[in-house]
Amino acid sequence: MDKNKYNNPLPLSQIEITDYFWEQELNLVRKEMIPYQWKALNDQVADAAPSYCIRNFKVAGRLNEKRKRLGEAFEEPSYTYRGFEVLPEDPKDLKEQFYGFVFQDSDLYKWLEAVAYSLEQYPDQELQKTAEEAIDLIINAQQEDGYLNTYYMINGKDMAFTNLRDHHELYCFGHLAEAAVAYYQATGNDKLLKAAERFADCIAARFGEAEGKCKGYPGHEIAEMALVRLYEATGNKTYLSLSSFFINERGTRPYYFDQEHPEAVKKGQEGKIRYEYHQAHVPVRKQEEAVGHAVRGGYLYSGMADAARCLEDETLYEACKQLWNSIVSKKMYITGGIGSTHIGEAFSFNYDLPNDTAYTETCASISLMFFARRMLQINPESRYGDVMELALYNTVLSGMALDGKSFFYVNPLEVLPEASRRDERKAHVKTVRQKWFGCACCPPNLARLLSSIGLYAYTESEDTLFIHLYIGGSIEKKVNGTVAKISIHSDLPWKEDVDIKIQGTGEVFTVAVRIPGWGKEYELLCADGVEKKESQGYLYLTKRWEKGEELKLHFPMKIRRLEANPLVRETIGKIAIMRGPIVYCMEEVDNGANLHLLSANKVGSAEIEEREIAGTMMTCIKMGGYRQIVSQEEATLYHDASEEYKEVLKLSFVPYYAWANRGENEMQVWVRKE
Amino acid sequence: MDKNKYNNPLPLSQIEITDYFWEQELNLVRKEMIPYQWKALNDQVADAAPSYCIRNFKVAGRLNEKRKRLGEAFEEPSYTYRGFEVLPEDPKDLKEQFYGFVFQDSDLYKWLEAVAYSLEQYPDQELQKTAEEAIDLIINAQQEDGYLNTYYMINGKDMAFTNLRDHHELYCFGHLAEAAVAYYQATGNDKLLKAAERFADCIAARFGEAEGKCKGYPGHEIAEMALVRLYEATGNKTYLSLSSFFINERGTRPYYFDQEHPEAVKKGQEGKIRYEYHQAHVPVRKQEEAVGHAVRGGYLYSGMADAARCLEDETLYEACKQLWNSIVSKKMYITGGIGSTHIGEAFSFNYDLPNDTAYTETCASISLMFFARRMLQINPESRYGDVMELALYNTVLSGMALDGKSFFYVNPLEVLPEASRRDERKAHVKTVRQKWFGCACCPPNLARLLSSIGLYAYTESEDTLFIHLYIGGSIEKKVNGTVAKISIHSDLPWKEDVDIKIQGTGEVFTVAVRIPGWGKEYELLCADGVEKKESQGYLYLTKRWEKGEELKLHFPMKIRRLEANPLVRETIGKIAIMRGPIVYCMEEVDNGANLHLLSANKVGSAEIEEREIAGTMMTCIKMGGYRQIVSQEEATLYHDASEEYKEVLKLSFVPYYAWANRGENEMQVWVRKE
Repeated sequence: MDKNKYNNPLPLSQIEITDYFWEQELNLVRKEMIPYQWKALNDQVADAAPSYCIRNFKVAGRLNEKRKRLGEAFEEPSYTYRGFEVLPEDPKDLKEQFYGFVFQDSDLYKWLEAVAYSLEQYPDQELQKTAEEAIDLIINAQQEDGYLNTYYMINGKDMAFTNLRDHHELYCFGHLAEAAVAYYQATGNDKLLKAAERFADCIAARFGEAEGKCKGYPGHEIAEMALVRLYEATGNKTYLSLSSFFINERGTRPYYFDQEHPEAVKKGQEGKIRYEYHQAHVPVRKQEEAVGHAVRGGYLYSGMADAARCLEDETLYEACKQLWNSIVSKKMYITGGIGSTHIGEAFSFNYDLPNDTAYTETCASISLMFFARRMLQINPESRYGDVMELALYNTVLSGMALDGKSFFYVNPLEVLPEASRRDERKAHVKTVRQKWFGCACCPPNLARLLSSIGLYAYTESEDTLFIHLYIGGSIEKKVNGTVAKISIHSDLPWKEDVDIKIQGTGEVFTVAVRIPGWGKEYELLCADGVEKKESQGYLYLTKRWEKGEELKLHFPMKIRRLEANPLVRETIGKIAIMRGPIVYCMEEVDNGANLHLLSANKVGSAEIEEREIAGTMMTCIKMGGYRQIVSQEEATLYHDASEEYKEVLKLSFVPYYAWANRGENEMQVWVRKE
Repeated sequence: MDKNKYNNPLPLSQIEITDYFWEQELNLVRKEMIPYQWKALNDQVADAAPSYCIRNFKVAGRLNEKRKRLGEAFEEPSYTYRGFEVLPEDPKDLKEQFYGFVFQDSDLYKWLEAVAYSLEQYPDQELQKTAEEAIDLIINAQQEDGYLNTYYMINGKDMAFTNLRDHHELYCFGHLAEAAVAYYQATGNDKLLKAAERFADCIAARFGEAEGKCKGYPGHEIAEMALVRLYEATGNKTYLSLSSFFINERGTRPYYFDQEHPEAVKKGQEGKIRYEYHQAHVPVRKQEEAVGHAVRGGYLYSGMADAARCLEDETLYEACKQLWNSIVSKKMYITGGIGSTHIGEAFSFNYDLPNDTAYTETCASISLMFFARRMLQINPESRYGDVMELALYNTVLSGMALDGKSFFYVNPLEVLPEASRRDERKAHVKTVRQKWFGCACCPPNLARLLSSIGLYAYTESEDTLFIHLYIGGSIEKKVNGTVAKISIHSDLPWKEDVDIKIQGTGEVFTVAVRIPGWGKEYELLCADGVEKKESQGYLYLTKRWEKGEELKLHFPMKIRRLEANPLVRETIGKIAIMRGPIVYCMEEVDNGANLHLLSANKVGSAEIEEREIAGTMMTCIKMGGYRQIVSQEEATLYHDASEEYKEVLKLSFVPYYAWANRGENEMQVWVRKE
């Protein structure tokens, strides 16, 4: 590890996104998602399952008030059941108890985090007032010792921290800490930050290396990276140590989860469920293959990268690199999706990347972006940026409809609506986006990711501004006590040109731009006197920058035919189409039914075509190909192989992320080549 | 329907199987399976799950004796639980109660049926003695009113017939009746037949069209065809009417199963689980698509064909033809396997025939043979015989190891051991045959099918002997009070010649031989004076046959490349190899790992090769093809498509049914073509 290479996100207040493509997305977050999700948290969306999230905080708060009023006479609730409660048919009959998933609190935290990022860029007094009311609800529910989890505060704190494996207490804490830091950085208001610190202190008092302390770690990771963020915001090293403890303890023997769940040991549940699912099968430094629940994996690896950076821990960093390679060389879809099986929402074995049963959760690709940005922070190599961009422009964006009003949890690469309806093996593959989910992790996760996109697009070190994603915007970079302003104009992902204008202050600094894997034959136009250096896929441009300087980059966007490593069984003999960072797909609405009958020319020309898809203009593709002719209905399924009859035609491709915006229909990314 | 075309199986006592290939199979049944299964029924197989089958009959018998001893003072057990009981850790602690699956009785009946067929062809005093002791156990347990089901007799008869949907009482009855008729026909001993009649009478007293009678029908079909068989053996029309009632009632509204299971209605379970699974979604004459549990479907359709024939019911026959076409034109694997999904062991939607997750239960292909033979009985068309032969030589035989000691329940067309181990979506796909199953339906079903193979190979009408399968054997055909003897010699499935020797008696009759779909360019060598007629794929050879006549048939067995209807997504661009009725596959042991990298020449030569596979000689195939070269481990999964590097090689194919006899390894039926 080379500390000189370290780089960090800039405060969002120093970034203004002015990109045509991304402004639309940010507006959707601000104008559609944040208000909608607030309603959802308050159970006010008529045709969606109630969340009970805010309600739970209120119930816990009332209990707390009672506790304060009654003092020692207050009878603590005692934990009496596990699992999910039966809902009454009439909402009026809801009792003064906890409802929803055990991790329901995290939804409010995720919403607050998204709100924080939004406020930092687009101040909004009314929204801030709503957020602060919500923060008061949270603080009102927090117990004196700092404990804060409505599930256990309502059901009985005697069982708190006794089911780390399944009950997401530390996960909820992680989201609290993420939201708290974001809110503080956005507004200067530290109320939630203090609450998060109190809960962190409460956890640190219970867990750790010291004798007598509990040796557990989170069942669903996120606290690892959240604690590093809390450390970086507060400077309190306890939080970094706690993160490091959670990371180092995971997977050691005797297995903590076995001690916590002797029934699983007795049942002889296999290791895949018992340990791999939670990345707890071996200590993290021995984990060479990404396994288990994909989102949890991505969050753990992100936390490991954070801790490795802050502690300059080489062996931990090595493990991060191993796990990164495991994912991108053996377990990632071409869309940047990860997690190929719905069973356990998990990574499957190497090269097992089925297109039609893929799970590829939106949140899993978000977690991959987290991991990528953190690897970039340690060492800016373009391969991390390439994957971050790939996941963002394809699977992450696919998670949301073009109008921002409906969401995919699962992002498959091949869909046949009849299969989703009639084949229970594909019941998890939805053919149209859903309004809100009972387990609503993806939409609020999307909101917090998109509203903080500037934290992924640009980072800085003392003397260098890194541009990882070509997202148009203005960045204020501090250099030697002066402030330079760098403006990026780009029409990515559709257009090939990027203009960078620099209002320098006469100080020397470097603008480092990523050379995308898809744009290696770039052209650069810049004034004389710019010192140019290419390293690890970044182009470092150094100069004593004055006012009104300009860099012009041109990344030729060829229409590319890609193929997978032949060890991927599902894509052998097939190609996928990309242009720039965008993966394309065929939809039935453009190409007719039975997409599998189509094949694409192995070579030959292809054209781009500007089209409107559900109200949004985008660059689509036409390419020559064939459709196999199906003869009249046959009496038997099988016959002697003969020359195939094919019709010559143009295949029509649209950006993958835009699929399913024109009604239910077939979709396919990979196409046979001829 | 044309009654003149009707034909029926001959008694097994008039058939002697003298075929090299099939004698081996029959010997395995006689010498391995029947003794092994007897041990299993008696819980005497050390390393297999206990069956408790015989034990349950003994417990029920003791209860019966108590009942007789105590008279009115006997306290009837009252039904207190449903589902499966918890087994004590020490077998000594087993209580005087029912253990095992609710349909456990049927295993003994299936065994007795296999024993009957075996005794009819290979008399064996000791085996007969064992069988008759088992029959005594059954009869000893039967109640006075004829009722006979150990689950309810032990747990409380008050609930008998209250859960037709799930509890397999009528299914067990069906297997009892099948065994009883077979045993009577084999030995002349009618003890079990009388028991079956008493139970049938008991059922007929309870179910039927008459007012006040129960309007239910079996959840798992088989009683429909068993009752026709009982009718044909006894002449008692009650049984035919009862079969017809069960068939006609199925799927009518209000749904019987909804009345029986109001909880399913309340839960709003969808129709696929509630009705289609049991083929009870619409009345049978309106069923145009084969749906639901594949074995149940095959048994129902077989019963429908039986009833249609006996009742000359045209509309029922039309439904049979529709359902047949639905299966063979849209839902059958090239191996004669049916049931593409493990969820519900069921048919999937049209053309959904995945190779690697296929269920294709051995019993389902047996049920397809039942259906095919019955369709042939009504109208001898070779397309039925073709499918019967296909299912037999491929999926049915694949169900058993070459040494007869282990069994497949599931018969996929593509297997990757790593996937079965690591991907829970394929956990049902076993990579090696298992000794015995907790739910042991396939092995005893195989035993009864194989030991009665003569009932499928040949049938007769008054003046015609039909040869559907070219299985070597001698058949005694009664013609005008004389007995002609027809001997078939064949080395199918490997050799192309079939010799038929006829010891005629000077009477005129017809030998009708099936012209297989794969052998249409046959040659016939016969004496002058044979009147030849081809009709519906059968060649009718009529003559006044004298002693020592001979027919020589030659069916050229070309190595065939087959392809599926292009609407089958899973096989597009691929071919499968057949020769005669045998489907071939590639195994890792012959072709190396990563079979998906291989592709076969679209045209060009291929050779046969006689090889020994696990001690058995068989005809294998070599064919030119390629292996795609995998370059050094790649850093990313995806790259620009380029010319593929391929190695020219010979692909090695072995008969599908013989796969997995040389250890665990990859297997693949369909191969990409170049």
